[in-house]
Amino acid sequence: MNTSNKSLHIDLNSDMGEGFGAWRMGDDDAILDIVSSANVACGLHAGDPEIMARTFSKAKERGVNVGAHPGFPDLWGFGRRIIPFTPGEIERLVAYQIGAAQALSTYAGNPITYVKAHGALGNLTQTDLEVATAIARAMKAVNPELICMTFAGALMQKVASEMGLRVVCEVFADRAYDEEGHLVHRKVPGAVLHDVEQAAARMLRMVKEGAIETVSGRMLPVQIDTICVHSDTPGAIQMAEEVRRLLEGAGVTIKSFV
Amino acid sequence: MNTSNKSLHIDLNSDMGEGFGAWRMGDDDAILDIVSSANVACGLHAGDPEIMARTFSKAKERGVNVGAHPGFPDLWGFGRRIIPFTPGEIERLVAYQIGAAQALSTYAGNPITYVKAHGALGNLTQTDLEVATAIARAMKAVNPELICMTFAGALMQKVASEMGLRVVCEVFADRAYDEEGHLVHRKVPGAVLHDVEQAAARMLRMVKEGAIETVSGRMLPVQIDTICVHSDTPGAIQMAEEVRRLLEGAGVTIKSFV
Amino acid sequence: MNTSNKSLHIDLNSDMGEGFGAWRMGDDDAILDIVSSANVACGLHAGDPEIMARTFSKAKERGVNVGAHPGFPDLWGFGRRIIPFTPGEIERLVAYQIGAAQALSTYAGNPITYVKAHGALGNLTQTDLEVATAIARAMKAVNPELICMTFAGALMQKVASEMGLRVVCEVFADRAYDEEGHLVHRKVPGAVLHDVEQAAARMLRMVKEGAIETVSGRMLPVQIDTICVHSDTPGAIQMAEEVRRLLEGAGVTIKSFV
Amino acid sequence: MNTSNKSLHIDLNSDMGEGFGAWRMGDDDAILDIVSSANVACGLHAGDPEIMARTFSKAKERGVNVGAHPGFPDLWGFGRRIIPFTPGEIERLVAYQIGAAQALSTYAGNPITYVKAHGALGNLTQTDLEVATAIARAMKAVNPELICMTFAGALMQKVASEMGLRVVCEVFADRAYDEEGHLVHRKVPGAVLHDVEQAAARMLRMVKEGAIETVSGRMLPVQIDTICVHSDTPGAIQMAEEVRRLLEGAGVTIKSFV
Repeated sequence: MNTSNKSLHIDLNSDMGEGFGAWRMGDDDAILDIVSSANVACGLHAGDPEIMARTFSKAKERGVNVGAHPGFPDLWGFGRRIIPFTPGEIERLVAYQIGAAQALSTYAGNPITYVKAHGALGNLTQTDLEVATAIARAMKAVNPELICMTFAGALMQKVASEMGLRVVCEVFADRAYDEEGHLVHRKVPGAVLHDVEQAAARMLRMVKEGAIETVSGRMLPVQIDTICVHSDTPGAIQMAEEVRRLLEGAGVTIKSFV
Repeated sequence: MNTSNKSLHIDLNSDMGEGFGAWRMGDDDAILDIVSSANVACGLHAGDPEIMARTFSKAKERGVNVGAHPGFPDLWGFGRRIIPFTPGEIERLVAYQIGAAQALSTYAGNPITYVKAHGALGNLTQTDLEVATAIARAMKAVNPELICMTFAGALMQKVASEMGLRVVCEVFADRAYDEEGHLVHRKVPGAVLHDVEQAAARMLRMVKEGAIETVSGRMLPVQIDTICVHSDTPGAIQMAEEVRRLLEGAGVTIKSFV
Repeated sequence: MNTSNKSLHIDLNSDMGEGFGAWRMGDDDAILDIVSSANVACGLHAGDPEIMARTFSKAKERGVNVGAHPGFPDLWGFGRRIIPFTPGEIERLVAYQIGAAQALSTYAGNPITYVKAHGALGNLTQTDLEVATAIARAMKAVNPELICMTFAGALMQKVASEMGLRVVCEVFADRAYDEEGHLVHRKVPGAVLHDVEQAAARMLRMVKEGAIETVSGRMLPVQIDTICVHSDTPGAIQMAEEVRRLLEGAGVTIKSFV
Repeated sequence: MNTSNKSLHIDLNSDMGEGFGAWRMGDDDAILDIVSSANVACGLHAGDPEIMARTFSKAKERGVNVGAHPGFPDLWGFGRRIIPFTPGEIERLVAYQIGAAQALSTYAGNPITYVKAHGALGNLTQTDLEVATAIARAMKAVNPELICMTFAGALMQKVASEMGLRVVCEVFADRAYDEEGHLVHRKVPGAVLHDVEQAAARMLRMVKEGAIETVSGRMLPVQIDTICVHSDTPGAIQMAEEVRRLLEGAGVTIKSFV
């Protein structure tokens, strides 16, 4: 839902807390000043209890909404590889991570309100019914009040809705969409947008129309509740800032979906 | 509290779910038929989401009460070594593990009711004020309804009580106590009891009198709510069975403290 | 090569040192008294420096030849799952593990003489040219004197030979072979042999004829240098003992290939 | 040894390859252009086979000498905490890591020539006889040709020499020394030098005189073979560059000790 009465509003989300021990990934402090929702890694692909608690706490100071960002248990691969787990195992893996995030966010006084699957696990939710179902089942069993954040148009959206979970859908500020509304594969030229002004202007059009804009300029109506921005790539902070600046300049309020 | 009206009752607890991946530790199936409370490892010193969920589920089938059994993040050392963490870090480490256990036990339909620190972390709670406080703070922040299980006479008992947590105290079926009521160090001859009948008879005396029996036979009055038995040492299952058999034969009911 | 002059001889090998920290897998002491070669896990799917050094040392006491048994870095999955690594990454992963095994076996006074890939990694070497090549390249780069142990008839045999490595080929005491000389899939009834006498008798026939015996009784001539026996399944030790007893009774000498 | 004939020369060393998976630590490319020896993490406190092989290979391209940099198995704590291992366990842990580094450096065509203990493990070698002995024993058992790099004046220097290992001694470009020649504790004001010109000038004096300069300006004669510079702290690259520039300007050749 991107309209409330007559005024437009949208959430901005970003992955966060993706360090481990002494290692860091991305500029969390900078991005926390821009977004309205923070997806916090849960210790299995990145993150540890210190980083998690600190991220939940910093988000609270800035009034930023937080969610669990579970991934495959694969520190080495940063959750970007498909580790062969059965759907049942994924269900338990996700439940474990949601629980850890619930505890540490409660500890930090900023309880999680949503779950967004990370990396390779998140990608599977677009098309793999068993994985999408496993994640929805974990959420429902652990805490049915949790909101499911997923790609606009992903299979996960349908699966989670049918199981009675509230779903919020995201589009990516820096990724091109093909004519079916899917992300253009990273290896295809033009898949990743680098021009911050063009990217921000495209986001404004998408939010205003409630539609994904494809590479050909076609608009595909979808549910858009949040825009995903990054903090760990060159120019990422600048793009996130420009998206926020342009949207606010056009009268769109940046606020979380809760 | 070991009396309810006029009948005596006591809890029997054991560490469980201490495998990892393809590895197993102890005979969980056998011990689950004997105890009334199961302390379930949370994935950092042992355990993984599969083992946790399965253990919570098996406990439920047998009506066994379950608790989180957090330890140092040290798979290699099985949580038996002191890893140098600050009290604040221990607080977050324990919160993380409690959360994971809450989620998977809820998932299994058998929510945890208590927390008992494992191994080296548990030993520290006997005398280390900062560590005891850290664990109590984690419990209180995450879920103040959780019960704190600790050694009879440990500093943890006092700390957790003062923070408003309910505390249950355990004695060990197979460990000798010195004249101060502390465990005799494992390296001292006689520290570990192997005669199952003598051990069981001693437990019956302790439960009846609400007192720790020292090596000299002195009885030190303490709160005794539960007896800890093992599943992973030679003869452990036999000792657990004999303790249960003898206590029940003497009219003591075996039931959990919740 | 299973003949030396007129007398028959064969190696018996088994996976070993597959514990981790406090966990154990299989009865290493029992199997070390039976085999002539021990495949020692290198710390990434199982094993740690203590277990590795102890296994190399115990093998030395019994005159048992030792090899590195590298696997995917996956303690949780015990190396039984395919973790998506590129061939280049597999090359470095295997080199890492060979090096660790070289160091600890040298430390124990019993330097490794061969390499056998474990679990999912080993299975890939039967048919995946890139994986087989990666492992052979790692061996050649680290120490070209190392012998490659692989399945009789595996692609690895050809790849390693062509790269100038000495190759020894194994058959499995407890696994059925199909008409192409491949292992019958574990899910097919009869894939795993449980009758120790039948299994041992089959091994004797294979060794005598230098051929794989298929489920239909056909003999497919192949290079057979070693028989793989297990230590971690029910009845495994008994089967290993019976294989050794029957072969020795028939005049076949059990000795390593070095 | 800091003189060769009449010309002065010295080695510059830095810790390197201290990332893990997707994480990075320090600017390895920049520091590799400055130093003559690279201490490469071995996978247990930091580093993985990919990073190790790449670091050995990049060092080779620049003619940089390489060594193994083993630490405690503690990714979470980056090897900066003392994990309670026995001396025997440390011996095997170090042997494991030396072996892995030998294999991957050989694979990269740039075999390691030395070993320098990392972090908390390295600190222990200054005063702990058992730990120093354990590391020297591991080196001797695995490859007695390996050179032991240690703090100038550390107990390790004596222990390794007595065991017949060649020893090279380092001073730190950015750390103050007390009147006994020990590092001033990091918590003491002035313990870490930030002025690159002062630090470089002090290094030149130390190298010229073959002596540690204490905070009071006293010169304590010691063996100085190498200067340790960092790549992972603010201004670290600048300090390393200035040390190299000033030394070379004064006629001191920067070259490794092999």
